[in-house]
This record gives sequence, structure tokens and C-alpha cells, in this order.
Amino acid sequence: MGVVHNLSDKKKQTGSVQPLVDLTKDDMGRVNELILSQAGSDVEMIPEVANHLISSGGKRLRPMMTLVSARMFGYEGNGHIRLATSVEFMHTATLLHDDVVDESDMRRGRKTARMIWGNQASVLVGDYLLGQAFKMMVDVGSLAALDVLATSASVIAEGEVMQLAAAKNLETSEDAYLAVIKAKTAALFSAAAEVGPIIANADDSKRVALRDYGMSLGLAFQLVDDALDYSGTAEDLGKNTGDDFREGKITLPVILSYRKGDDAEREFWRRSIEDGQSDDDALAQAKIYLNKHNAIGETIERAVAFGEAARLALEPLEESAEKAALIEVIDFCISRVS
Amino acid sequence: MGVVHNLSDKKKQTGSVQPLVDLTKDDMGRVNELILSQAGSDVEMIPEVANHLISSGGKRLRPMMTLVSARMFGYEGNGHIRLATSVEFMHTATLLHDDVVDESDMRRGRKTARMIWGNQASVLVGDYLLGQAFKMMVDVGSLAALDVLATSASVIAEGEVMQLAAAKNLETSEDAYLAVIKAKTAALFSAAAEVGPIIANADDSKRVALRDYGMSLGLAFQLVDDALDYSGTAEDLGKNTGDDFREGKITLPVILSYRKGDDAEREFWRRSIEDGQSDDDALAQAKIYLNKHNAIGETIERAVAFGEAARLALEPLEESAEKAALIEVIDFCISRVS
Repeated sequence: MGVVHNLSDKKKQTGSVQPLVDLTKDDMGRVNELILSQAGSDVEMIPEVANHLISSGGKRLRPMMTLVSARMFGYEGNGHIRLATSVEFMHTATLLHDDVVDESDMRRGRKTARMIWGNQASVLVGDYLLGQAFKMMVDVGSLAALDVLATSASVIAEGEVMQLAAAKNLETSEDAYLAVIKAKTAALFSAAAEVGPIIANADDSKRVALRDYGMSLGLAFQLVDDALDYSGTAEDLGKNTGDDFREGKITLPVILSYRKGDDAEREFWRRSIEDGQSDDDALAQAKIYLNKHNAIGETIERAVAFGEAARLALEPLEESAEKAALIEVIDFCISRVS
Repeated sequence: MGVVHNLSDKKKQTGSVQPLVDLTKDDMGRVNELILSQAGSDVEMIPEVANHLISSGGKRLRPMMTLVSARMFGYEGNGHIRLATSVEFMHTATLLHDDVVDESDMRRGRKTARMIWGNQASVLVGDYLLGQAFKMMVDVGSLAALDVLATSASVIAEGEVMQLAAAKNLETSEDAYLAVIKAKTAALFSAAAEVGPIIANADDSKRVALRDYGMSLGLAFQLVDDALDYSGTAEDLGKNTGDDFREGKITLPVILSYRKGDDAEREFWRRSIEDGQSDDDALAQAKIYLNKHNAIGETIERAVAFGEAARLALEPLEESAEKAALIEVIDFCISRVS
């Protein structure tokens, strides 16, 4: 997988989330406080379940994106704090429900909430966080921002159902797969970035720029995630590598490898993905086939292309520390593949 | 259960949902169309799962309440159609998630969606409907109505978690139980009724009247449901009687009976509710104990009192066909106990 190493060596020198972290440090302090208070409830189980996931060290890329995209256009109110918190809650709710749907045991290096408190609590606490997210958005009072975020909530769920419907279907086309990840992952990145210019009352071209940036970045992000599941380490991932494989999940590396494979290889993918014969030996074999067809490399090439599209989306905007930070994040997301 | 029969004989003569149905007939036609179109999606599984439940003949009390409470104050726009549809979607989403949480097999005389399409689809399609509900609310453009409905979404989920946390706990107090059903059931009735005067720009006293009416009606409604699970017929319920008992659910009849029971009875309740010894013989025994302590009768007395509170909440409002219809619904809800 030479391509991978070349890319990552190059990207690691440039890409960093640090400028974004530095720019949003104070605001993120307020977001983190609001996260804790809004995940609170007199019903003890709610903060327990919510905080287990919230405190598990996610990077909080999405809320930082909202904060910086508001600041970028001179926003000086407080609404961006609540919108950023809403975005993180929508994300957290999705993860809680995802882990139920995927029957996942681990997330960010910890047992999933459903393994500790059960599927029932995970479903309901997810619902609670979604309700809290909408309340905070309403408080901000921007109907345009509400529209973008409410639409993304529908689209995300739609993407998850698409994924469920395509589950274990090796005939899934690359386009169909991109439609899934556009909905389930990229839509929230896009909404998170777009609400910044909205509350800053920036003109429509700015909204479009940030929306497109978020969408392309989200696609790149998910493709890198897909690649990491076969090429990363458990430490990088915070979950076991090969989880997608064991769950019979269709991701781009598998789609590419299946398409290019001969009859014996296709038979192997059917056995492992459709029939669940996906033990460690099968995973090792899968990696050999992925490597043979450069499926990880090609997946990353696609991610790099989406990263480039994200960069292009921001090009018309004037230079600023915020813009530079958002561009650095593109390389950061892609350089996660090591 | 003499009390029950007396009450229901009396109520059956007066209570009816018909005036509400008649008043909202045209509007409900539009709501039903919007329900179908908004439950649609290119992702085939979504309308399949959603329509299975939507077409199963729920009474649609909640959306009718929104429609009539808007008309009552002279509302002449179209927003009430979308808000009523949102309310029904919030309810449908809750039912989809509830059936997963309760592991229910039957709902409204049909297999639950989760039995046909699985828990995963039920969770995700519920999420989708919730997203669609918020989108429609946003379209209406009333931040005050959004606030009421978003708050109720959080409160409903909070109530569901409270119920989960109190599951199988026979020491649950009557107050704690009322707090659960206030949140999980009554909050949506209350929000459904309150958004009418809000979009009609009626003054605050009207909002409060409808909010209080909906809250009390919702409490009465849920208590009657609890009673029906032990005293109704499968035909009335659209699900098996005794479901609450078999699921080890704590409801007011059980709380009252346990509190008044002697040591042997308490031991029986622990075996059946906590340890799951809840076969048909146990259900028959439970009914004997409930009857001995008039637990169903007392539950209905509480429901009647909440019904009276609902009626009182509307008293300050001037007479109208809408007000009369809402009052008839109170008796209708209570007279379901036969």
C-alpha cells in the first residue's frame, strides 16, 4: 500500500487540527459547559449514558466547524455556542443509535453505552439529546439555521436506512455508496459549516461555500474512516480494526475489491460479508485481496479528491485565519490514514 | 369492578369523538395527504415501515386537537396542517421506538414494525419521522410553536427514560408514576393543543388554557390505557390485554394493588413483575388482586378527576363548537374503559 504511506507522510507534515483548536479554544470552553448542562436531567440515567459517550474524547470537529464558520464572517453574538452544541448533540444521538443498529461493542476505545446500559437506554437517551438539540436551535431563533439543521436530521436518518437496506449487498455500486455516506456523514459536516455564515448574516455565496466545503470534507472524512478500518490500528481508531468487515458492512474498499475480483475472490467476499464468515483469518485474507487491487489506495485517492473539492469551495473567500484553519483540517482528516 | 361499569355506562351516552372528527374533517384530509407525502422517501424501506404503522388506524386524536385548537381562535392560514402532521409524526416516531424498547409484538391489532423489519429499521425510521416533523415545524415559521414542540420532544424522551429506570420497581410511588406519564404521554397532548392558539396569535391566557387542557386530558388518557390493559378486550385495545403485566410494566393499578396488598400478595407481585412469572394463570391471579383492592376503579377515578381538570381548564373560554368538541373528547377518552 505504497500510495497510502506516501500520502500520509506528505499530509502529516501539513495537516493539523491545531489551528482550528486554537481559534475556537474559548468558545469550545463554553460549548463544553453547555454540553454538560444540556445533557443533564433529573432523570439520573440520562447524564450517565450521555456523558459516557460525550466524555470519551471525540475530536468535536463538527462544533468547532460551526464556531469558526460563524467567526469567519464576523459573528459576535452567542448563538454559535448553542448551534455548535446542537450539532454535537445531533452527532452524539446518531452514534448512540448507530451502535444499537450495528450491535457495536466498542466506540472510542470504550464499551459502547448499549453494552453498559442496554439498547433501550441508548435509543431513548439519543432521542433526548436530539430533543435538546432542537430546543437549543430554537433558542437561537434563526429559522434559516433551523431549516438547515432539521433537514440534515432527516437526511442523516435517511442515509442510515439506505445503509441498512444495502447491508451485505455486494452489488452496491460506488455511486450508491457515495449517496449513503453523503447522507449519513457528510450532511452533518455540511450543516455544521453552513449555519455559521447563516447566523452571521453573510451573503448566500458564503453559505454555499461553507456548505460545499462541509459536504466534501465529510465525504473525505468517511472514506478515510472506511480505509482505516482495514489499514489502521486499534489505537488510532478507538475501536477494533476490522469492525466493518466483521459486521458485514459494505464500504468502498470492499466494493472496489469485489468489483475487480475474480470468481474465487467474489465467492470469498460473499462468504465473509453475506454469510458472516469473518474471523481473523478471513480478515487477513480480505486485506490481501484489498491490497492486490489497491482498494485502500483508491479509496484514499477518492478521499483526496473530495479534500481538494473542499479546498476549492473555500477558494473564493478572502484569506483569514479561520479559512486557513479549515483548510488545515482537510489535510488533518486525510492524514489520519497511516 | 362495579365502579368501572357505572362510569362507562354513564360516559358512553355523552362522550364522543364525533364532533371533533366532523369539525376537522376537511383539514384532516389535508393532514392525511401530508402524512403520506412526508413519510415518503426514495429510500423504499422508509415509507414501507412508516406507512405500516401510520395506516394501522390510530385515532389521530393529537393532530385533530391541533387543528381544532387553531380554528377555535380564528386561525385561517395553512400552518396548522403542518403542525398537526408534525405532532402525528412525533407520536409515530415515539411508538416505533417504544416498541423496540418494550420488545412489543403487537400494536393496533397488527404485528409491530420491529417484528417485520427489525429493531434497526424501527429506530432509524423513527429518527427520520422526527427529522421530518421538525422540518415541517420550521416551515411554519413560528418560533413559539417550535419551542413548545421541541421542548415536548425532550420531555417525552425524558419520560421514557424515567419509565425505563423505574422498570420493574414495585416501590415506585404514585407521584413518581404520574411524573412518568405526564412526560411520556401528556406532554405531547399538551403541546398539540397549545400550538393552536400560538399560531392563531391568541393571547397567553388562551395558550395556558389549551396547554392545561391537553396535559390533564393526556394524563386521563394514559390512566385509562393502564386500566384497559387489565380490564379491556384485545379488540378494544388493538393489542393483547395483559401486555403491561407480561412486560413487567409498572402502572397505577399495580402500584395501588401492591401498596394495599398483604405479604403474600406483595410476594406475588414481585414474582410476576420482577421475576417475570407472568403467564395466563398469573394474569388471572393479578386481576383477582386488582379487583380485591378496587385498583382499576381507583385508577379510573383518578382519570375522571384529570378529565374534570381538563374541562375546568377550558371553562374561561367562550362557548364554541370547537370548545364543545374538545369537552366531548374528554368523556370519549374515559368511556373507552368498558
